[in-house]
Amino acid sequence: MTDPRPRAEALDRFLGTALKLAREARTIVLQRIAAGFDSRRKQDGSFVTDVDLEVETRLRAGLQEAYPDHSILGEEQAPRETGSDYLWTIDPIDGTHSLRHGVPLFGTLLALTYRGQAVVGVIDLPGLDRCYGARFGGGACRDGRPLRLRDVAGGDTVEGEIVAIGQRAQFVAAGRPDVFDCLSRAHPAVRTYCDCFGHALAVEGAVGAMVDFDLRPWDITASRLLIAEAGGKYVEVGKRVAEHGIEHHDVVFGKPTVVDWIVARIGGS
Amino acid sequence: MTDPRPRAEALDRFLGTALKLAREARTIVLQRIAAGFDSRRKQDGSFVTDVDLEVETRLRAGLQEAYPDHSILGEEQAPRETGSDYLWTIDPIDGTHSLRHGVPLFGTLLALTYRGQAVVGVIDLPGLDRCYGARFGGGACRDGRPLRLRDVAGGDTVEGEIVAIGQRAQFVAAGRPDVFDCLSRAHPAVRTYCDCFGHALAVEGAVGAMVDFDLRPWDITASRLLIAEAGGKYVEVGKRVAEHGIEHHDVVFGKPTVVDWIVARIGGS
Repeated sequence: MTDPRPRAEALDRFLGTALKLAREARTIVLQRIAAGFDSRRKQDGSFVTDVDLEVETRLRAGLQEAYPDHSILGEEQAPRETGSDYLWTIDPIDGTHSLRHGVPLFGTLLALTYRGQAVVGVIDLPGLDRCYGARFGGGACRDGRPLRLRDVAGGDTVEGEIVAIGQRAQFVAAGRPDVFDCLSRAHPAVRTYCDCFGHALAVEGAVGAMVDFDLRPWDITASRLLIAEAGGKYVEVGKRVAEHGIEHHDVVFGKPTVVDWIVARIGGS
Repeated sequence: MTDPRPRAEALDRFLGTALKLAREARTIVLQRIAAGFDSRRKQDGSFVTDVDLEVETRLRAGLQEAYPDHSILGEEQAPRETGSDYLWTIDPIDGTHSLRHGVPLFGTLLALTYRGQAVVGVIDLPGLDRCYGARFGGGACRDGRPLRLRDVAGGDTVEGEIVAIGQRAQFVAAGRPDVFDCLSRAHPAVRTYCDCFGHALAVEGAVGAMVDFDLRPWDITASRLLIAEAGGKYVEVGKRVAEHGIEHHDVVFGKPTVVDWIVARIGGS
């Protein structure tokens, strides 16, 4: 079944559902942290915790109840394919490594695409009590307050900004460790604020840009819409199809001047 | 005037004063962030904000009122030398670059030394609502709850830990960029959680270790006591006397096994 092209009212409703489900997810996350949780290693060597699984189960249940005909792609469970033009992507815990160790910079990512275009995006950071949301054409908000990214201007410089970057291992996985090494040397304030924490800081302009490589769809779809709706620039410098046909994306996004400065130094893939 | 060697009751009183002043500093910081503040560049090229100055002024006034005979060394204002065995060190805002840009990982550092030995240490993180405190022989606490660092054990590995590291520019300043580059390659989860945020995470064991170079006394004295009182290991791998006779320290601290793993790879200075 193909929906008509979504109108603003429909998008607002989808965003409202996503924000409500993110709040429910946060409640689960905070309760589980307080009570303790188990974790184990996945086939790819990364960890998954009980929190990841419980949050994804809750989000899927909430989405299926609200939109039974929509498809769902989540990090931890099998895809739900309905043939719909609408596809929700879920990363129940982005930053599982941080969550396991007690670093409060993990988050929950939820996004909706319509025929491949991101139309709703939410990043929730339970450890910082911050929630970022956007719908296509409606602007981006943090905790209900509109965000408007200001580019570097006046007496400010690209070198005076903070540049957030993923861990070096991601750049190795993408075949581009030179990008990590080049930027660490070229810019005075490069920080590995990995996962959605760095994405959220880029959306609100606290960092000048985020440089993140080897991302799966559920890692990047929400941020891609949020940065566009906040008035920032998003550049994909590389893309690969990896295991299970999942695309991996190498991206730079944030204040336009900072993004251009970075892309000029690291080149394409 | 030379005090007798401080007893536990005296140290508890000093810690109580430090925690009370840190709370007052936090109130100033949060009010100033909400209201907006100005910043300007210092002679060394780094920035100072109105927040740094107002917090240091408040902390100095509180310390002078409580302990008029103690010496004070702060980042932003001239030293107060009384000839006392007691010296307070103040970093009103550790992470001014973060504060200026809206990255919520900055903090306030306050420490007391007695004849050069750290006896009280406080790290306050207003953006995360966390406060860490310790006095010599009394253990370390976060928000009043005792902290006890567990070393890597059982099925856990050094590679499974997160390693926090300062920005590469600090290692360049210390003449050891090889340390940054070596660790970024050797360990899968190295993150530039710079400033006191990384220190605090090491004290509570959320990261396996913090590797931080080119630190002044007010950057490191509180953390040195906190990590010792939490049961962690602290290794100084380098030290230099720089401008104004101020010592700069290159340190690794955290879980003993992780500290040993790092020190074995980077060598001494």
